Amino acid sequence: MQTIVNDIQAWLKDHFEEGTLLLQRLVQAPSIAGNEAGAQSIIAKKLNEMGLKVDVWEPDGNELKANEYFCSPREQFTGSPNVVGVLAGTGGGRSMILNGHIDVVPEGDHEQWSDDPYSGVVKDGKMYGRGVTDMKGGLVSFLLAIEAIQKLDIKLKGDVIFQSVVEEESGGAGTLSTLLKGYKADAALITEPTNMRIFPKQQGSMWFRILVKGRSAHGGTRYEGVSALEKTMLVVNQIRGLEIRRNEQIDDPLYEKTPIPIPINIGVVSGGTWPSSVPDLVKIEGRMGVAPNEKMEDAKREMSQCLQQLAEIDPWFAEQPVVLEWFGAQWLPGSIDIEHELMNSLVHQYRESVGEEPVIEAAPWGTDGGLLTEIGKIPTVVFGPGVTEMAHYPNEYIEMEKVFKAAEVIALTLLQWCNSQN
Amino acid sequence: MQTIVNDIQAWLKDHFEEGTLLLQRLVQAPSIAGNEAGAQSIIAKKLNEMGLKVDVWEPDGNELKANEYFCSPREQFTGSPNVVGVLAGTGGGRSMILNGHIDVVPEGDHEQWSDDPYSGVVKDGKMYGRGVTDMKGGLVSFLLAIEAIQKLDIKLKGDVIFQSVVEEESGGAGTLSTLLKGYKADAALITEPTNMRIFPKQQGSMWFRILVKGRSAHGGTRYEGVSALEKTMLVVNQIRGLEIRRNEQIDDPLYEKTPIPIPINIGVVSGGTWPSSVPDLVKIEGRMGVAPNEKMEDAKREMSQCLQQLAEIDPWFAEQPVVLEWFGAQWLPGSIDIEHELMNSLVHQYRESVGEEPVIEAAPWGTDGGLLTEIGKIPTVVFGPGVTEMAHYPNEYIEMEKVFKAAEVIALTLLQWCNSQN
Repeated sequence: MQTIVNDIQAWLKDHFEEGTLLLQRLVQAPSIAGNEAGAQSIIAKKLNEMGLKVDVWEPDGNELKANEYFCSPREQFTGSPNVVGVLAGTGGGRSMILNGHIDVVPEGDHEQWSDDPYSGVVKDGKMYGRGVTDMKGGLVSFLLAIEAIQKLDIKLKGDVIFQSVVEEESGGAGTLSTLLKGYKADAALITEPTNMRIFPKQQGSMWFRILVKGRSAHGGTRYEGVSALEKTMLVVNQIRGLEIRRNEQIDDPLYEKTPIPIPINIGVVSGGTWPSSVPDLVKIEGRMGVAPNEKMEDAKREMSQCLQQLAEIDPWFAEQPVVLEWFGAQWLPGSIDIEHELMNSLVHQYRESVGEEPVIEAAPWGTDGGLLTEIGKIPTVVFGPGVTEMAHYPNEYIEMEKVFKAAEVIALTLLQWCNSQN
Repeated sequence: MQTIVNDIQAWLKDHFEEGTLLLQRLVQAPSIAGNEAGAQSIIAKKLNEMGLKVDVWEPDGNELKANEYFCSPREQFTGSPNVVGVLAGTGGGRSMILNGHIDVVPEGDHEQWSDDPYSGVVKDGKMYGRGVTDMKGGLVSFLLAIEAIQKLDIKLKGDVIFQSVVEEESGGAGTLSTLLKGYKADAALITEPTNMRIFPKQQGSMWFRILVKGRSAHGGTRYEGVSALEKTMLVVNQIRGLEIRRNEQIDDPLYEKTPIPIPINIGVVSGGTWPSSVPDLVKIEGRMGVAPNEKMEDAKREMSQCLQQLAEIDPWFAEQPVVLEWFGAQWLPGSIDIEHELMNSLVHQYRESVGEEPVIEAAPWGTDGGLLTEIGKIPTVVFGPGVTEMAHYPNEYIEMEKVFKAAEVIALTLLQWCNSQN
């Protein structure tokens, strides 16, 4: 095996420039929701060159709409294809899905970027650009791992199914579409940006909106009104209390080092119409973490009950209860045993390849892992070279060295998992 | 005098329908900022019919811009004329300005109005429509008072200067323009909607905007960020403390019955861009009351110092201080002695006419009174028939009976103030 390890390392080293160029081209093809076709064609072309069996299809909105796990702001996906490439095994081995998303979040305020947000420029070993860390770098790690195995003529018994999906940032419609199309395997990896940590568990996440009512009045006689902003402050405190209670109950060692394992974040606030009027309506929007082993419905019920209790704190809420809506994106939680064979393989190969113990934690955010593990029944682990803190932010970057190290770990894991014949 | 009182009462009673129709036509001519010409032409026509010396001019933006008290979102007023009508006295008497604004605030959400917002419909003695109470009803009270005096052939020694101005709702540019044009008098009345209370003092008011900074982070790792919403809650509490301290210092008996004499209202809140991100910027906008005898600059300084002290409560504010801006509209405070002769005249005539003691208070909001009193050196009292609580709100209305009663009080006050010869 050591020879194979050396060969893989050598191949990756020899193809450092090529792999870097591939990632650069991917980054330079912006792929915000609705605009993924360009980047996907680069992926499909690469898979074709590699001689994999390539499947390109646009997710079917009608089929998805009928599925209870469908979640997206849109209902049709023309021009937004998924791309799958299969490296067929020789038979008798375990299969592996390598799943990553091609879609990126908007680049935001250009003023905050030092270079063009889609530059792909490399400085001091770091490549910059929206999506490089979340998660085109991870997609390239997958492709490098597969290509190394191929070019070194290593035969795997089990199939390797590479998936470049759309819609992860919007709630998983791309991955759901792969399940509906029938893609299945014995395990899956997702190379979201984990800072090379290994996440056998991922929290779920749901977006909520709360409307807080007040009563209008002239600002000069504000005591005749009820400020929806002041009431919102009570709502915010109430939600903090809920977050504290929920997180006190988390005793999973994988969350030991996480300050707040399943946070409730309020991300948007908006209300009132006129400086001289008491605001009579305030809206807040946020995301609520769902523990890896928790049901979404139970989490929703806890939020709902928490808000109902506002009436005990302030009779205004009995008169004018807040309105709670679950909207937009949601990500199912996912969880596999920390001793699952997939974990054993990955952890072992990480140790061998990197030369130190991997950090094993639970994910601080949602991924498509929950869909694969819980709905697809495909045990999934999240592990990737991207920089967790830079995902979604200006000057997003990735360390190229990590892209290749992750490729090495993944290649070796494939060898072990898919039971190589060599 | 009793004969004259009877005559005036009789005249007003005889012209109830005519006066009601005039007000209805005025209400049915929407006059939001920029669109006042239609309503003003109704006023000008009426003044011409009454044989007053009529002056119609558009405020001069260049002239206004050069004046330190100019305050408006716009700099030119084409199509937005002021209208003045002068009833010349016979000489040797005191003059009076009767000032009211033609502009109205937007009608807001039509769904909240039972009838069309500009219907002018009369039900059970109440006329409905945007502007009827704030303050076209008051303008009609003035016109009725003047016409009664004229038609009864009562000669006044002093001039009566009726002014229908634009821009009161935006900060006083219309009234400022009358001052720059040279209109001056020994006293002034403004028929803003006081519920027939008499306001010898009016608070000032200024709009402020505060930007509160945070630090962005992914919502799933919110502890890595700093929520601008949470910091805004500290700012709101800080401002509450300032409001409490400022109002504790108000010992003016005219504010005895007012729960919060000079309130600080936060009317608008807005911040954050994404439910899954910690908000890094929140903006709040509001209005700050200025006591009748307070300088605007002193009030501004108190707010500024209050916000600087945030750093003592939370070191974040030392690192990222909030940004305070004074923007948009402002109204100067105004104040005359409660024993001023104008007050004596008005209070006396109120007693005689209404048959009870008037309620004398300080205004809960800003008006053009501060401009007239403090800048024009024209002692001004605010008194009018409109319904204070309905100003700026859906289903705004006025009681027609009060329009005519106010006209009676004003006519009798004019007789006393302008030293009638009869």
